[in-house]
Amino acid sequence: MNKAIVLVSGGMDSLVTAAIAKRECEKIYFLHLNYGQKTAKKELDVFQKIKEFYQPADTLVVEVSYLKQIGGSSLTDENIPVKDYNGSEEVPDSYVPFRNAHLITIATSWAEVIGADKIYIGAMEEDSSGYPDCRDSFYKSFEKTIDLGTKEETKIEIITPIIHKTKADIIQIGKELGVPFELSWSCYRNNDIACGKCESCVLRINAFKETGIKDPIPYEIEIDWEE
Amino acid sequence: MNKAIVLVSGGMDSLVTAAIAKRECEKIYFLHLNYGQKTAKKELDVFQKIKEFYQPADTLVVEVSYLKQIGGSSLTDENIPVKDYNGSEEVPDSYVPFRNAHLITIATSWAEVIGADKIYIGAMEEDSSGYPDCRDSFYKSFEKTIDLGTKEETKIEIITPIIHKTKADIIQIGKELGVPFELSWSCYRNNDIACGKCESCVLRINAFKETGIKDPIPYEIEIDWEE
Repeated sequence: MNKAIVLVSGGMDSLVTAAIAKRECEKIYFLHLNYGQKTAKKELDVFQKIKEFYQPADTLVVEVSYLKQIGGSSLTDENIPVKDYNGSEEVPDSYVPFRNAHLITIATSWAEVIGADKIYIGAMEEDSSGYPDCRDSFYKSFEKTIDLGTKEETKIEIITPIIHKTKADIIQIGKELGVPFELSWSCYRNNDIACGKCESCVLRINAFKETGIKDPIPYEIEIDWEE
Repeated sequence: MNKAIVLVSGGMDSLVTAAIAKRECEKIYFLHLNYGQKTAKKELDVFQKIKEFYQPADTLVVEVSYLKQIGGSSLTDENIPVKDYNGSEEVPDSYVPFRNAHLITIATSWAEVIGADKIYIGAMEEDSSGYPDCRDSFYKSFEKTIDLGTKEETKIEIITPIIHKTKADIIQIGKELGVPFELSWSCYRNNDIACGKCESCVLRINAFKETGIKDPIPYEIEIDWEE
């Protein structure tokens, strides 16, 4: 039995990754993290809707308070505001130190208990914000580390199906797979409606524009989709 | 400035590791995890005493609820009782799936924020319970993974000073460093006094006997230290 854990934040990338896992695996399990990010409530809300859509065999929602305690990111630290996108090449303030390692580590513990052999994560290396924990080499190395740190009989593969894709690519893939983009939430700001100006919104909007598809979610600012 | 994070559970191994870090580094930081283990309260209590003794620059106590949610270990799962020691070679029920990876991952996020360049962990490869996440090769691989998954300027070394030692060795080292063994807690059972029969107690008692030193902590059962 082919069992896969999928990391589902509720953003566009994890949503398309969930659709890919659904197509490739017999049984899928959704893992969602509340790590004290400012948009935690919104993300949990969209996670529940995505879960209803894809009907995984089981879900695990975990509360991780320590990333907020540790701070150091505009996504978790109330003293660091979420900036508007400025196109800088540097690792942005929104980087949560080593966050994706926590996702993989929690998924690994769960996988070892339920006997899952795959972990899907929707990280993107090139077309993202330059976060170091989104690199392909990082996941390859992590897979080896898992093999060394778990039981002999535990074999876990980390699957990063969109790691070398662009955001425009995954919108295309998502469209082919019938992904409900209207359910996803990407904005870094804790608003009812996506701000359209933070780095996550800007990358998403630009990708939709590139594919010539109108993003089905509403934005606080007016966007010219014909541009 | 040489800053090190030390993982301090409150057991004998982490206590000696803390003493070694204290001697080797300019500034030490203690990280303690409450992961829903049955002895969490007791361990936090001894952690506070060890903190008072070693006076680290700062401490971080984190609550990790998901390892209990995930279960699969006699240390966290109320449905799996803690067994008496039986000398088996297999990975025992007390193995918490991939637990030490969580410790290292949390330490790494904290290290990246405070600018620490070392993480000390008191894992032992040969003279322990055969947990896969206590292997030297696991920590070497994790160090590479950290390098790939953190910022360019972040350089973190994982230091495992007792990895190839025996428990008897570390009692000797601890004695030389003036380690307050009376403050430590090793028992897997949630009693006021150590049971003396679980695998952790038995390994500890045998090591003290081997060194010819009497363990300063009391036990529920009578122990012949002259044996």
